Amino acid sequence: MGAQGKRVPRAVREQQMLDAAVATFARRGYRAASMDEIAEAAGVSKPLVYLYLHSKDDLFTACIRREAAALKAAVRAAVELDGPADRQLWSGLLGFFEHTAAHPDGWTVLYSQARTVGEPFADEVAAMRAEIVEFVRGLIAAAARDADCDDGDLAEREVAALAHALVGAAESLAGRALGGTAASSGRENAATLMNFAWSGLANLMDGRPWTPSR
Amino acid sequence: MGAQGKRVPRAVREQQMLDAAVATFARRGYRAASMDEIAEAAGVSKPLVYLYLHSKDDLFTACIRREAAALKAAVRAAVELDGPADRQLWSGLLGFFEHTAAHPDGWTVLYSQARTVGEPFADEVAAMRAEIVEFVRGLIAAAARDADCDDGDLAEREVAALAHALVGAAESLAGRALGGTAASSGRENAATLMNFAWSGLANLMDGRPWTPSR
Repeated sequence: MGAQGKRVPRAVREQQMLDAAVATFARRGYRAASMDEIAEAAGVSKPLVYLYLHSKDDLFTACIRREAAALKAAVRAAVELDGPADRQLWSGLLGFFEHTAAHPDGWTVLYSQARTVGEPFADEVAAMRAEIVEFVRGLIAAAARDADCDDGDLAEREVAALAHALVGAAESLAGRALGGTAASSGRENAATLMNFAWSGLANLMDGRPWTPSR
Repeated sequence: MGAQGKRVPRAVREQQMLDAAVATFARRGYRAASMDEIAEAAGVSKPLVYLYLHSKDDLFTACIRREAAALKAAVRAAVELDGPADRQLWSGLLGFFEHTAAHPDGWTVLYSQARTVGEPFADEVAAMRAEIVEFVRGLIAAAARDADCDDGDLAEREVAALAHALVGAAESLAGRALGGTAASSGRENAATLMNFAWSGLANLMDGRPWTPSR
């Protein structure tokens, strides 16, 4: 703090505070984390944290929004939109798993802390999740159009359900990898999901759905 | 209450209290739900709830344990263990989705409330989830042995990852169905997951994994 602190631009200081807050919330949990700890971790005074980010609630919301935006951006940037459908899915999954592996604290804040604390934070995460599902839905729908599956046309509701299933599977694998019980790389997780999902989707798009009667 | 209440056996009374508690926790949330409301919904006096179930924490724990046990039992009972691998998976998924659709309050307590309130309740749900993943892992491992996939042998760690992916996908679809945004039946959800997962697993067990280079 003091003279040196004042020379750092506000935008930079805020990012430092958010870095410290994400790390602290992830380690200690929303309730246990104190503004004192966060200020200390950021190397600033507590009044400066309040001046810039107003309250613990606002600070936590800012953390969720930043981490959610970063995760969404990582997935969008990773998808090779000009590639074939399986390549698009693979590149998006790789982006998802590599981002979550590189930002475990962000994942913890989004998927454990924000949900744990409940409303209104859980709503922020639900909104981010809905955006990711919608993005994946678009990828699957485009793949279905490319595959030109006219007979047995993949109904829109089926595509939406597949997107939900894929996102749920990805979250489960990411949570497992970050829970420390399995040392699997982002690449391994993405490959697992491609094996799991893509071959299934590929059959579906070829008009070969699985049926209970066969 | 009163004379009539006393004639009801304790075990029956406790189940009535748990029924009322699950419904109340699901609708109001753990924190907002009061022991007064729960007693009223169960048609008993508040002291009787405390006498039988001790505290709000203990009552909530009893709800989680009962709903978790019911969900696990429903899945185990549904699996047609003497059928072929895809039939086993299909029957288990059907059991999962039909049980969660029939017990939306139980699902809400397990997957929203218990996680929202945090430790130690979240640990109970994590333990239930680990048991379900382990059960699914066993099914996939048995299917892999049946398929006799010696070359390209499905490594144990891959089977575990697939089980996590499948459970995550199932949870995501169940949450979507219960969130009210999609009116999909248990049968539709199970079929979606079979299309998504089984065809993928089947290829995998035939030694035809998806590879990024193809």
